[in-house]
Amino acid sequence: MALKTREDYLEALRKLRPNIYKFGEMIEDVTTHPATKRTVESHALNYDAANDPELEDIYSTTSTFTGDKIFRWNSMMQSTDDLIGNMRMKRQNYRRTGSCTGAVCVGWNAMNVMWAVTSEIDKERGTDYQQRLRNWILAAQSKGLTVAGALTDAKGDRSLKPSQQPDPDTNLRITEVREDGIVIHGAKLMICGTAASQEIFLLPGSIYGESDQDFAIACVVPRDIEGLTIVEATRPSDRRELEDTADVETPDTGITQGWLLFEDVFVPKERVFMCKEYKYTAKFIQYFTANYRACIGACVSGQGDVMIGASVLMARLNGLSAKTFTDKLVNMSINNTITYGLGAGACALGFKHPSGSFFADSHTAHTNKVMVATLPYEVKRMTQEIGGGIVETGCMPSYKDFTNPQYGHLIQKCLKAGAGSAETRFKAARLSEWLTIGSGVPGCMHGGGSPDGAKLVVRFTTPLEEYANYARKIMNIQEEVIEPKKK
Amino acid sequence: MALKTREDYLEALRKLRPNIYKFGEMIEDVTTHPATKRTVESHALNYDAANDPELEDIYSTTSTFTGDKIFRWNSMMQSTDDLIGNMRMKRQNYRRTGSCTGAVCVGWNAMNVMWAVTSEIDKERGTDYQQRLRNWILAAQSKGLTVAGALTDAKGDRSLKPSQQPDPDTNLRITEVREDGIVIHGAKLMICGTAASQEIFLLPGSIYGESDQDFAIACVVPRDIEGLTIVEATRPSDRRELEDTADVETPDTGITQGWLLFEDVFVPKERVFMCKEYKYTAKFIQYFTANYRACIGACVSGQGDVMIGASVLMARLNGLSAKTFTDKLVNMSINNTITYGLGAGACALGFKHPSGSFFADSHTAHTNKVMVATLPYEVKRMTQEIGGGIVETGCMPSYKDFTNPQYGHLIQKCLKAGAGSAETRFKAARLSEWLTIGSGVPGCMHGGGSPDGAKLVVRFTTPLEEYANYARKIMNIQEEVIEPKKK
Amino acid sequence: MALKTREDYLEALRKLRPNIYKFGEMIEDVTTHPATKRTVESHALNYDAANDPELEDIYSTTSTFTGDKIFRWNSMMQSTDDLIGNMRMKRQNYRRTGSCTGAVCVGWNAMNVMWAVTSEIDKERGTDYQQRLRNWILAAQSKGLTVAGALTDAKGDRSLKPSQQPDPDTNLRITEVREDGIVIHGAKLMICGTAASQEIFLLPGSIYGESDQDFAIACVVPRDIEGLTIVEATRPSDRRELEDTADVETPDTGITQGWLLFEDVFVPKERVFMCKEYKYTAKFIQYFTANYRACIGACVSGQGDVMIGASVLMARLNGLSAKTFTDKLVNMSINNTITYGLGAGACALGFKHPSGSFFADSHTAHTNKVMVATLPYEVKRMTQEIGGGIVETGCMPSYKDFTNPQYGHLIQKCLKAGAGSAETRFKAARLSEWLTIGSGVPGCMHGGGSPDGAKLVVRFTTPLEEYANYARKIMNIQEEVIEPKKK
Amino acid sequence: MALKTREDYLEALRKLRPNIYKFGEMIEDVTTHPATKRTVESHALNYDAANDPELEDIYSTTSTFTGDKIFRWNSMMQSTDDLIGNMRMKRQNYRRTGSCTGAVCVGWNAMNVMWAVTSEIDKERGTDYQQRLRNWILAAQSKGLTVAGALTDAKGDRSLKPSQQPDPDTNLRITEVREDGIVIHGAKLMICGTAASQEIFLLPGSIYGESDQDFAIACVVPRDIEGLTIVEATRPSDRRELEDTADVETPDTGITQGWLLFEDVFVPKERVFMCKEYKYTAKFIQYFTANYRACIGACVSGQGDVMIGASVLMARLNGLSAKTFTDKLVNMSINNTITYGLGAGACALGFKHPSGSFFADSHTAHTNKVMVATLPYEVKRMTQEIGGGIVETGCMPSYKDFTNPQYGHLIQKCLKAGAGSAETRFKAARLSEWLTIGSGVPGCMHGGGSPDGAKLVVRFTTPLEEYANYARKIMNIQEEVIEPKKK
Repeated sequence: MALKTREDYLEALRKLRPNIYKFGEMIEDVTTHPATKRTVESHALNYDAANDPELEDIYSTTSTFTGDKIFRWNSMMQSTDDLIGNMRMKRQNYRRTGSCTGAVCVGWNAMNVMWAVTSEIDKERGTDYQQRLRNWILAAQSKGLTVAGALTDAKGDRSLKPSQQPDPDTNLRITEVREDGIVIHGAKLMICGTAASQEIFLLPGSIYGESDQDFAIACVVPRDIEGLTIVEATRPSDRRELEDTADVETPDTGITQGWLLFEDVFVPKERVFMCKEYKYTAKFIQYFTANYRACIGACVSGQGDVMIGASVLMARLNGLSAKTFTDKLVNMSINNTITYGLGAGACALGFKHPSGSFFADSHTAHTNKVMVATLPYEVKRMTQEIGGGIVETGCMPSYKDFTNPQYGHLIQKCLKAGAGSAETRFKAARLSEWLTIGSGVPGCMHGGGSPDGAKLVVRFTTPLEEYANYARKIMNIQEEVIEPKKK
Repeated sequence: MALKTREDYLEALRKLRPNIYKFGEMIEDVTTHPATKRTVESHALNYDAANDPELEDIYSTTSTFTGDKIFRWNSMMQSTDDLIGNMRMKRQNYRRTGSCTGAVCVGWNAMNVMWAVTSEIDKERGTDYQQRLRNWILAAQSKGLTVAGALTDAKGDRSLKPSQQPDPDTNLRITEVREDGIVIHGAKLMICGTAASQEIFLLPGSIYGESDQDFAIACVVPRDIEGLTIVEATRPSDRRELEDTADVETPDTGITQGWLLFEDVFVPKERVFMCKEYKYTAKFIQYFTANYRACIGACVSGQGDVMIGASVLMARLNGLSAKTFTDKLVNMSINNTITYGLGAGACALGFKHPSGSFFADSHTAHTNKVMVATLPYEVKRMTQEIGGGIVETGCMPSYKDFTNPQYGHLIQKCLKAGAGSAETRFKAARLSEWLTIGSGVPGCMHGGGSPDGAKLVVRFTTPLEEYANYARKIMNIQEEVIEPKKK
Repeated sequence: MALKTREDYLEALRKLRPNIYKFGEMIEDVTTHPATKRTVESHALNYDAANDPELEDIYSTTSTFTGDKIFRWNSMMQSTDDLIGNMRMKRQNYRRTGSCTGAVCVGWNAMNVMWAVTSEIDKERGTDYQQRLRNWILAAQSKGLTVAGALTDAKGDRSLKPSQQPDPDTNLRITEVREDGIVIHGAKLMICGTAASQEIFLLPGSIYGESDQDFAIACVVPRDIEGLTIVEATRPSDRRELEDTADVETPDTGITQGWLLFEDVFVPKERVFMCKEYKYTAKFIQYFTANYRACIGACVSGQGDVMIGASVLMARLNGLSAKTFTDKLVNMSINNTITYGLGAGACALGFKHPSGSFFADSHTAHTNKVMVATLPYEVKRMTQEIGGGIVETGCMPSYKDFTNPQYGHLIQKCLKAGAGSAETRFKAARLSEWLTIGSGVPGCMHGGGSPDGAKLVVRFTTPLEEYANYARKIMNIQEEVIEPKKK
Repeated sequence: MALKTREDYLEALRKLRPNIYKFGEMIEDVTTHPATKRTVESHALNYDAANDPELEDIYSTTSTFTGDKIFRWNSMMQSTDDLIGNMRMKRQNYRRTGSCTGAVCVGWNAMNVMWAVTSEIDKERGTDYQQRLRNWILAAQSKGLTVAGALTDAKGDRSLKPSQQPDPDTNLRITEVREDGIVIHGAKLMICGTAASQEIFLLPGSIYGESDQDFAIACVVPRDIEGLTIVEATRPSDRRELEDTADVETPDTGITQGWLLFEDVFVPKERVFMCKEYKYTAKFIQYFTANYRACIGACVSGQGDVMIGASVLMARLNGLSAKTFTDKLVNMSINNTITYGLGAGACALGFKHPSGSFFADSHTAHTNKVMVATLPYEVKRMTQEIGGGIVETGCMPSYKDFTNPQYGHLIQKCLKAGAGSAETRFKAARLSEWLTIGSGVPGCMHGGGSPDGAKLVVRFTTPLEEYANYARKIMNIQEEVIEPKKK
């Protein structure tokens, strides 16, 4: 069966019930509204790529279930190479869109992680979650779905557990278990790519104990399900997208994050893959973060590639050879390669779950998360350093001024410098600004959890006593050297 | 004579001819227009402070000419303490406005630097520039002026000198020298605080040789002088300032940068302090950058103080103790202190010019510039790390959504977390975003020149041969060790 | 056939002709002389490990030629997993010896790289190098040899090619090609593990052109071949090894580097695998550095593990809980994991050569080299920070003072602090000192080439134009933006 | 009265009772014994410099008591300029010796700090400590003494107070107060420059409470006082100093640290300046660390200057232009300037004590300590990077091998490269090794206390609530935002 096309995808999005809002107003059609059409375009490019002979290898693969050709982002990942395939696609996506295509990331990861987790639950509890999931995956592969994934709850007071919150709605929870499904209520926040998704995979936001079992949920819902209201977040520069000069001021691609507000939403049981089995949330988080934090290295390296490219453009447009900045460009490249290579290393050092799913090495993946939360900031700094003042400081007038009949010609004279026209320099400067402070990009810092959380994992996966014993043995220290007692 | 007040200042601004534009439209009154009123407010706070018994020590001093009490930003700086007084005021300004008050920075520095440079020109050339400057300074002190300063030209192709540019207007130049003054033409870009200034001190943008003598200009012009058109630059988040929710979405203070477009502007000779004396542009740049790059350490540390404060707020609003982040807060504080302390060190290691002006040590000041272009990026990163996702990723909806009658209450439920209300958390998150990626701040990277330029100075002020001789002497190496010949 | 044992190995070493010198004197027996017995012990541990059921998986594998069980360090590496097997063994070696076991590193890498290179030469030139190499490898596997490898020449003036050097002996060269073999002359320097090796694999030190064809050599020689004089280098702390207190002052393991001085050494042709085929030195260097610089990440991480362990000991011996230093220990662990994980990533992203050899990805491997030359310095700094003054500053008396009858008891009183005895604290402090400034370890900086060389590779493997085109495409920039012409 | 000369100084040292030991043996004459003559030479250079017209400005000044010309290291520091004078001398010392001259550092600081502390004690307690101190200072100025200073106790278990230690001798304490003086017992460790000192200023090692009052001691003792045994610590490379090749293997200058073992030492009361007044130990520590940690920036920058110089030599000796490494040399220079300039900034931001003493700003000084414990490690790394393998890895044979009649000529051929002779390259390589891993230098890490201690001060001197209020005010947040209550 032929892969779905961009047109199929846009058509499917247009059929969804409008339930997305921004700046207080409803968005009728996400494929054309200026607030959402860029993230839709980013995802539509995936359909183009999968149907493009040059890129299909990156964007498609073979179903382990049916043997059919399917979109890679709907596939099972069962080896190091499959995980690296995920990374290759992510890096390529950033290179083509400058940003995140979040609706082919978390959902994809979720279905692979839940494949393993459901096998564990089923085995111990006699449930049939994996069969339900299998059915859903088969449908997703066949329909070529784009599926966002949602972990992060509103959380409320960070020092309290979900069940202790004054307002129970700060975390998504099950309010009713019925014969035919469950009713859920609460919020998931900052969900990437929601506006471009057809469905949303809902996941546990943390590790839960028994008292928080109502929050142990995994299920998939259509993006336009009854009872779900979505509000798009705003970024510093996104009002530029609403103006008639948007074509010059901002890329055609981009990402948005949604706040998902659930009010008594019914999810039929065939779409539910975890229902209060809180004990398995630990495994879920472990597997999910391992793969997520290994592969995110590809995202920041892909965006870093574009920052290198934008810097090369800016150097030349300023009248300088890119060679002038060789040292900085090499350092940018090194930073990109650290997160990509370390991610690939986590994939290579991973392990195969009995269910068939393959998971990256946790210790290495969480180390990578710390790098992902650090190195891109340096790459951004270097992008601003190479680009010059008009990139860094909010120091360039708007395109409305650029074309103003009274003084626009003077602005244009000021902007013409080295290679290329004044307009090209305008656009390139806007790109570097957007990549570094326009924030057209979700966070490498907190996306998928904070670096401090990653450090906790690093701490617990570093065997201090074993290492101390290596030291003792090398120096022939016979004596035990133990922790001091509390005094 | 009493110091001028906020009201005097605002009144003076209102009397100026409207010649500032943004988004293609003219700004009638800079004190009330949403695009400029924030930078005006930042500067008005200086008048408040100088008249406030608690702060007057920082904001006022005594005229070395008249013995009158004057605004510190109109004073001569003739000692280490005077320079550190400049730094104290800058840091305080950032702490109260979160950003730059550029119209009490470059102009102030300029008059002190030109005091020394004019004495050198006068001595060798028999001119009377210093007397002209003295008269202007006396008037500025008496009127309590706020004076922007403008160095940066449009530049054009960075690989060509001003006189070689295809378009001569890419650098501000003298097109005619008349008996009663000069005519100038061209552009100065990214000039901080223009909209809040009463006058603008125009300065040489680089070191010029004989063929570029037409570009060797120093003079002061009223901000609304005939022939001058000013276009305000735009920043990623500044369209928020134009909306009716601006009070919540953005601070009341801020900075803007202007592009100054000069078309045959006549400057009377009593306001001209350098006219084609290209030989002195080297000294000008040396003195100017020494003081500027020493004192800029105070700016980034003051903004860093606010980032620490905003991070303390965010931690608590998220439900966590600020103590959780002690390590990061200490590292932020260390970074702030490096730039402030290193700036103070440059002031302490400076020298007194025969004219009375005091200049910071160049080597130390340029080293500080490199730090100023590096460390604040780390402070910003840590601000985002402590603040969480709603600070970092453009992950929070607009205030229009926050108050939406249909779903606003759900947004508010999501935003209420630890200490404080949902609205306070909204505002604090916007502040951290603004401080880090909203770009309500001019550049520590390129403001006052690039860090690569600073490294050039560091290179030439590091005596490699002397250091090599220390090494030889310590190791009793008698032999000369010289550079290899070209092969 | 059973694997060789420690005893077999020591016996083999003892049979070699004494041709190693240190401090001006000949070393009769490397297995007992205090200057060499530590590096021999480090390598003897490999034989123990390969015969130890718990570790044999790391230290042994199956011959691709014979199916026999062989030492891993004599094996062909033909997949990602084989390369990671190399890394696992390296890390384990550092954990058990605190240092390098250089005689199972370069030689091993050499035979795999030359397997590919000889196949290329043979194919194009009709030679039989691969067959010769195959025979030698079979013998090495069968005899369980420990084989050092030697690339680095004395080089002479770095700005001249080998053939341009005033002294031709600064690079190892072929002085005569005979029917039955070749005669070589010159020097290879800083060769790790020479004293512990049975044979030495000699390799081209650089990429050579036609005029330097005499320097294009690959061959294997017995360590005690006629005409070869070896002088051991000295390290800051190695005189401690010669004293009767050595057991307490220094580990039982260690590494030494030798200077190999060749004077008209004849190598029979069956041991020669490259003879003036200069064109293939480029491939050799490419393949060699890719695998070497990927795997070296395991070395520095293994040593870093020991530094973590030593720091845990020191904390406790000082009277503090290791928990006090959690943040630093985590950062040390992160640094270790970056070089290990990035190395594994390079292995995962590598490629299979038609000959069967597998090579790591060059771009990633060279990025890792830059990290390897940077991060361990931070780990060392943290080791000194945790350890306290007696670790850092050469601030602890000798063991002779520790046991002095007059005042030794006072020293011992001073050294007793928290957990453990005064002597244990003495030994642990010496270990941390040795790991950080005693230099009982070859260089992560220049071993296998300089980081600046690695940056050159990073530069040439970063496709700047491709990246610039991504940027153009994202911003819809139609215009070409090309490098400026020279002016 | 003429300043003392090198000869006077050496003569005075020779007259002292031999009470210093190393490697288990007594040192008869510190001025000639190879283990101590290098640190004596370093200090003798101070006498030369003070009598040298070119340097006397740095090394001498005028007594505030008598108006006589005195050694700067015996002077009172009563202004920013005096403190910067201390820094200038420290930097110059490092440039001339490559290392520390510890006997003109802590003692000098001590007398200035105790000048202020004794005035506080005297004022509140009616004692006459300051008069005693005045008398001693006058004598020190007149005799031109070189005076070491000793803070660091053996400490014992870091988690226990001095009075809680199982062994009371782990901290120096008063065991008896007599009419005519005090008796002290215990140990001070790692005391720089002891072997070169004539007297030693003993100081409280920490802040003490009432139960630890016996440890609150300040006094001065002759270096050879009865009951004091001194054991010299050992450094990795110091056995080289004992060999007959020492002239080539190591500099003529250097530093050593001593362990001071006090057994019932009687100190007459006129040399006692604090006796159990524990309340003032807090002030002592505050003042002492402020000046010490400001000025130590000069030490590491001075050593950094030599590392730059040594790197220039090595580049050329390797056959490369120093220009090849401009970027690294500039970064080294920047690091040096940060610690020097930040120290100068702390001096400029300091305050004058009512007693006349001047103290650097604590917050800035402790920030500098953190830099001092970080940046030199980078400078060392770059020194190794520029120098090449023979500098880094313990990869060069000994001078005994260099001159060996059998193969020495071959070693020499290997060492001759670019500019200069083989022997010069040998010596320069040893210098870079000594500067970076030979550890001929006391610690920038723990000298004067640990960086973690400095961070504690930074933390308490950063006004978080004030900064939070700036943030609130900028964003018009009316609500208080307070720390969460414990839950």
